Amino acid sequence: MKNRLPRKMDLKMNSFDLNSYIFSKRKQINSTLEEILGHTSKSSRLIKSMKHSLMAGGKRLRPILCITAAEAVEGKTDDVIRAACALEMIHTYSLIHDDLPAMDNDNLRRGQPTCHIEFDEATAILAGDALLTFAFEILSSIELINVNHALKWLQVINTTAAAAGYKGMIEGQMRDMAAEDTLLSLEKLEEMHALKTGALIEASIITGAILGDGSLEQIEKLKIYAKNVGLAFQVTDDILNVEGDPAFMGKDVGTDKARKKSTYPSILGIEKSKGFAKKTC
Amino acid sequence: MKNRLPRKMDLKMNSFDLNSYIFSKRKQINSTLEEILGHTSKSSRLIKSMKHSLMAGGKRLRPILCITAAEAVEGKTDDVIRAACALEMIHTYSLIHDDLPAMDNDNLRRGQPTCHIEFDEATAILAGDALLTFAFEILSSIELINVNHALKWLQVINTTAAAAGYKGMIEGQMRDMAAEDTLLSLEKLEEMHALKTGALIEASIITGAILGDGSLEQIEKLKIYAKNVGLAFQVTDDILNVEGDPAFMGKDVGTDKARKKSTYPSILGIEKSKGFAKKTC
Repeated sequence: MKNRLPRKMDLKMNSFDLNSYIFSKRKQINSTLEEILGHTSKSSRLIKSMKHSLMAGGKRLRPILCITAAEAVEGKTDDVIRAACALEMIHTYSLIHDDLPAMDNDNLRRGQPTCHIEFDEATAILAGDALLTFAFEILSSIELINVNHALKWLQVINTTAAAAGYKGMIEGQMRDMAAEDTLLSLEKLEEMHALKTGALIEASIITGAILGDGSLEQIEKLKIYAKNVGLAFQVTDDILNVEGDPAFMGKDVGTDKARKKSTYPSILGIEKSKGFAKKTC
Repeated sequence: MKNRLPRKMDLKMNSFDLNSYIFSKRKQINSTLEEILGHTSKSSRLIKSMKHSLMAGGKRLRPILCITAAEAVEGKTDDVIRAACALEMIHTYSLIHDDLPAMDNDNLRRGQPTCHIEFDEATAILAGDALLTFAFEILSSIELINVNHALKWLQVINTTAAAAGYKGMIEGQMRDMAAEDTLLSLEKLEEMHALKTGALIEASIITGAILGDGSLEQIEKLKIYAKNVGLAFQVTDDILNVEGDPAFMGKDVGTDKARKKSTYPSILGIEKSKGFAKKTC
């Protein structure tokens, strides 16, 4: 994908240690999330349930991509860090709801009991609702927004809500549930993933580019990059569900096969899936 | 409460037919909701489930209050109608989730089967999520927002998200669930209702006043009005749960007593509750 990245980013990549970069950004994201949550009530069961899932040590892929996109257009981490955290909240809410007994009925997430196992089902539904709503509160914190940038923040809210909503992530989850016990075509599988995971990944990158003051041309280029990241992420996730180490990943493996879900490995086979993953990177 | 309303509103009230006013505003709200939903997919099960609950004929109290607040500060319905619809979406999402088996486990709402009865539990969770997210998409529709008003819309999003979130409506629902089988003090009951229903009612009125270009003084006055509307609404709702006609209300009655919930009638008795309701109006 190198040839699709903005040139400035390519130059920086020459002396680039990806692991240290991710480690450092993840640290910043976690400390900003701690800071944001620090203003909330310590005794509230609702807050405890939100923290349980949000601070359980996720990869922070979406907020890191948001920051990286901002940097790719010469923006600063400080300009986007709160938006990046809001995106992680939206991602976490979607995990809490997807894990519920009425949906995937998962017990383990990020190496911890899922929210409804640690608390109860009603609390998990409300914890998800509250994280989603909190994300929009953060994205509109007027006391922290420069008046001249108000329109950019509205654009970020609109992009994020559209990606996370009925024509993005939520429709993807509906299709994922409908597809259990069904063998999808590769085209339908890609369409489903583009909605379920791709849309929010794309929104994270666009958000970073908007807040980093990227040009329209840069944003368009980053959109192509985002689509490939989304695909690469999904095919890798599918492969790891076959071959991954549950202790390292913090979640169960083999669950796709058990649920007779259509995945890249189930359609293409494991080797072709690995080749496809490499092609998107 | 008359002496707390802005003076312009008082003057208009002299020749005011409340029923026609509510009927006409409700019609406008419903047709704008239809228009907004008209742009969505007709075949999607998710959209059908969202429409099922949203278009089941609610009172539209919150959007009407939003429009009325805008008019009270000499704003126009057109300036706030989409925000008013977004508030109704947030209210409807909260009803869908509150009705779920893990929470109130209600079968009837607005005279129709609840969303999880008509569809299924997973779809109802996602329909609620999608309505909440859609509300924020509407509140940030940049193509419809005058650039000079961007900050006002951010303020509306922030006010709404704060009211609907972990320190407002959702915390109220947590407390409501925790209080089943418990007799609350009047103070604790009022605190719970202020969060569960008061916060979004207040946000609806403030939103109308902001978008109607009200002065800070007008907004402060309307906040006091909003608090009283919230209280009046809740005590009346509690009384109707004892004495109301389920056919007229479109939902079951006697459910508070069955769930041993603390209500104004259970704490004050029915007559004192009626007196309290009158005092707040």
